[in-house]
Amino acid sequence: MITEEVLKDIFKPRNLKWRTSITKVEPNKLTTRGYPQEDLIGNVSFSEMIHLLIKGKLPSKNEAKMLEAVLVSFCDHGVTPPSTQTARIMASTGSPLHACIASGLLAFGKNHAGAIEYAMKILQEGIIKAEGDTRKIAEEIVDHFLKNKEKIFGFGHRYHNEDPRAPRLMKLAKKYNCFSKHSELAVAIESLLFEKKNIRMNIDGANGAILSDIGFDWRVGSGIFMIGRLPGILTHVDEERTRESSFRKFFEMDEIYYNGI
Amino acid sequence: MITEEVLKDIFKPRNLKWRTSITKVEPNKLTTRGYPQEDLIGNVSFSEMIHLLIKGKLPSKNEAKMLEAVLVSFCDHGVTPPSTQTARIMASTGSPLHACIASGLLAFGKNHAGAIEYAMKILQEGIIKAEGDTRKIAEEIVDHFLKNKEKIFGFGHRYHNEDPRAPRLMKLAKKYNCFSKHSELAVAIESLLFEKKNIRMNIDGANGAILSDIGFDWRVGSGIFMIGRLPGILTHVDEERTRESSFRKFFEMDEIYYNGI
Amino acid sequence: MITEEVLKDIFKPRNLKWRTSITKVEPNKLTTRGYPQEDLIGNVSFSEMIHLLIKGKLPSKNEAKMLEAVLVSFCDHGVTPPSTQTARIMASTGSPLHACIASGLLAFGKNHAGAIEYAMKILQEGIIKAEGDTRKIAEEIVDHFLKNKEKIFGFGHRYHNEDPRAPRLMKLAKKYNCFSKHSELAVAIESLLFEKKNIRMNIDGANGAILSDIGFDWRVGSGIFMIGRLPGILTHVDEERTRESSFRKFFEMDEIYYNGI
Amino acid sequence: MITEEVLKDIFKPRNLKWRTSITKVEPNKLTTRGYPQEDLIGNVSFSEMIHLLIKGKLPSKNEAKMLEAVLVSFCDHGVTPPSTQTARIMASTGSPLHACIASGLLAFGKNHAGAIEYAMKILQEGIIKAEGDTRKIAEEIVDHFLKNKEKIFGFGHRYHNEDPRAPRLMKLAKKYNCFSKHSELAVAIESLLFEKKNIRMNIDGANGAILSDIGFDWRVGSGIFMIGRLPGILTHVDEERTRESSFRKFFEMDEIYYNGI
Repeated sequence: MITEEVLKDIFKPRNLKWRTSITKVEPNKLTTRGYPQEDLIGNVSFSEMIHLLIKGKLPSKNEAKMLEAVLVSFCDHGVTPPSTQTARIMASTGSPLHACIASGLLAFGKNHAGAIEYAMKILQEGIIKAEGDTRKIAEEIVDHFLKNKEKIFGFGHRYHNEDPRAPRLMKLAKKYNCFSKHSELAVAIESLLFEKKNIRMNIDGANGAILSDIGFDWRVGSGIFMIGRLPGILTHVDEERTRESSFRKFFEMDEIYYNGI
Repeated sequence: MITEEVLKDIFKPRNLKWRTSITKVEPNKLTTRGYPQEDLIGNVSFSEMIHLLIKGKLPSKNEAKMLEAVLVSFCDHGVTPPSTQTARIMASTGSPLHACIASGLLAFGKNHAGAIEYAMKILQEGIIKAEGDTRKIAEEIVDHFLKNKEKIFGFGHRYHNEDPRAPRLMKLAKKYNCFSKHSELAVAIESLLFEKKNIRMNIDGANGAILSDIGFDWRVGSGIFMIGRLPGILTHVDEERTRESSFRKFFEMDEIYYNGI
Repeated sequence: MITEEVLKDIFKPRNLKWRTSITKVEPNKLTTRGYPQEDLIGNVSFSEMIHLLIKGKLPSKNEAKMLEAVLVSFCDHGVTPPSTQTARIMASTGSPLHACIASGLLAFGKNHAGAIEYAMKILQEGIIKAEGDTRKIAEEIVDHFLKNKEKIFGFGHRYHNEDPRAPRLMKLAKKYNCFSKHSELAVAIESLLFEKKNIRMNIDGANGAILSDIGFDWRVGSGIFMIGRLPGILTHVDEERTRESSFRKFFEMDEIYYNGI
Repeated sequence: MITEEVLKDIFKPRNLKWRTSITKVEPNKLTTRGYPQEDLIGNVSFSEMIHLLIKGKLPSKNEAKMLEAVLVSFCDHGVTPPSTQTARIMASTGSPLHACIASGLLAFGKNHAGAIEYAMKILQEGIIKAEGDTRKIAEEIVDHFLKNKEKIFGFGHRYHNEDPRAPRLMKLAKKYNCFSKHSELAVAIESLLFEKKNIRMNIDGANGAILSDIGFDWRVGSGIFMIGRLPGILTHVDEERTRESSFRKFFEMDEIYYNGI
């Protein structure tokens, strides 16, 4: 018999495992962050779209210009980054494009592109702790890292002693009114580090500070780096495929040193 | 003794395993496709930078606007795409951000985002073969696929019978003078398919045609999709991490059907 | 002129970037950990080979049997693990086999298969700290986790309140003389947890303890899990490909809950 | 009102999206291919387990020994394989273990470990086509590839002109009664290739033939290679982490050749 209990069990709310607030998908209708996609296409820039997706709202004019510059600055660093090397080696083995690019991104570890995430974490936690006294917290951060003989994420570069991208980005941050607390802290840290160790801000420090000032959480920082770098990795995969012979040797046997039994 | 032979051996040209024409890296100097990076940052849009990287030159104003629209159109499709599902499941396991995003991209197989690559291949090979007679080649393509009972990449969608993004993109292509041979072929195919099977062009067909008309090789097509979709995948990973409990069950045990021994 | 300095520069030792002690590669000759590979093939079991690779020496008879059992125990857990789900979703998109399996492994985050690594870390650090007093250190570990309301890696299971694999493995550890300090600590922790919370040791706890007692460092623990689980993931990818339709929907549109604007 | 229709709709069979015949998961009970896992653990070897998973049944004694030898033979090839290089580069960037190993497997493209899959495909399709005349089909295969100036997957090696693993495996195949049609075809191809081009069977050819003779479908071939190679990749990641400095340069700036604008 269909008792009340039976019906309650039947009509109990279904367990909805998939919830999202990003895009509403209906037949022939896609609404992202409240906007029909056909209204976004052709009316907002790609940078504005990125901001809308991640932060749930469109950026101001200045923020959009700043984000555009940040994304451009991540473009490429030749074949020196491990992510580029692995993507190219992968391409050489005949792996498909998406596997090459995925592998490139997997190289974004703590020591490589992951650095921007840690730089943002240091700056964002620093600002919360600083309560207005930027200089003091900069000193604490620098002292902490120097004492532990560790590198401060976002400062120093293994190829450049003066990363040309950082000052350009800082200048634009001022122009676009995106130079705020986190950028100030980054500059204060740089000033101390330069004095003591002749070390300057690098691209991760500059972009980490700017993205923090625009309001991005440090947890998405290296994701934004990935967005900016993916076109470069794609281009390297394409270059490897079209210009080099497949399955080539990336080094000779006499470049290997065997030091076992 | 240092004979001529010995010296020749010593001075033989070093085997340079790593060649690239994308970015020249020198201490404190980065030159991409001939431009110092500090001149690109703040002066070109992210879309222009993407074009510069992949194609080696800056796009025209119209091409830049078109590419911007194409990249925006790839943004997100809720939690329905397999790439989004895997990225979120991955996030739930506590895997780091770059592993979640890499895994999302690995789902870009032939049946999913890989479709744009195949759509571009069909259109680009079709145009070469067509020698001006677009209508005839459209008929050949449609006949070939219908005969083999296969889907034509770039047409039809499992959620939309009228993908709202495709007509919007085609309209913009005309506005920006990017509607050329490949778009014409795509429209001709759609017209036949709609007549015979009530099937319309989808986003892959529209973007595949437009990217072909701008001059992108089909081999980089799904890479451009990845660039456009990565921000959406990043946002889903962030949503999963911040709104859902970790290591949640994506389905219940009674939703599994065991059909073995 | 060829001065002494010039010659010294020419003959300076080459910078050998690739060093390894695992396998010596010579033309037509492969020597792994001191053994010609053709002598290993057919003479050692796969488990012995795994031990030889990772630890640099062959295991004892008992250790070999134990490792065999550990590897078998990791085999499969149906479609409930996130790694299996992502591998199957991936297969459905038409991604190639290696991309499906790689994606499965990427799901081995902290909350999933990464747990064995943390279980081993807790046990190995505990034993160093214990200085013989296993009971005391077990209490400290349990208190620490209960106080922080965290799960102890290696104990409790979301599908089983009594993981059938753990007691079987513990029994074999005793039989093969591989039940030593780390296993004792794991049993002491289980005894406290069971008393206080009705929680038992799971497969990660049992295997983590045993692998520690055989002498594996915790940093390779989840790698050994991967070796044991890879055949299962491969089988699921094969099952998805051969039994299910491609690009199938893993859930319906009405199973998605949109909770945005 | 609860009409018949309403009830039918309520009680319609649930759409079971997840089906599997590999392992039945019940609370405190795991049954794989019909066997309780606690009966498999300690009673079957890892190789037998792998066979049981993939093929659904336990192997014969001889097949088990053969599979054991095949898996051992895949163990390691020093730092020369692209999969090993990418895994080590990845480790150097500070990426977690599972990302390093996943990236290694992503390098298993067509030109690298994917070769075994193609070798098996050629042999299996050859045998079907041969209808007993192995010699004739061997000639057809060799002619086809030589005419197209392509390498035959499974023959020839860029480091060895006589891969030491192949003859050892062939010898064991005979010993274990696993040398059947596919191995005969592989030997016939080798004989022709050696005569015409001085090219011998490599490990992929030998293992591809043997796995085919044991009854494995070519579509799982490179998956079995992955199982065999994963321990080696894991060991390289461990070696990189414990013996080398992190984020080291894998080559110097003057080893890069810039050939752009």
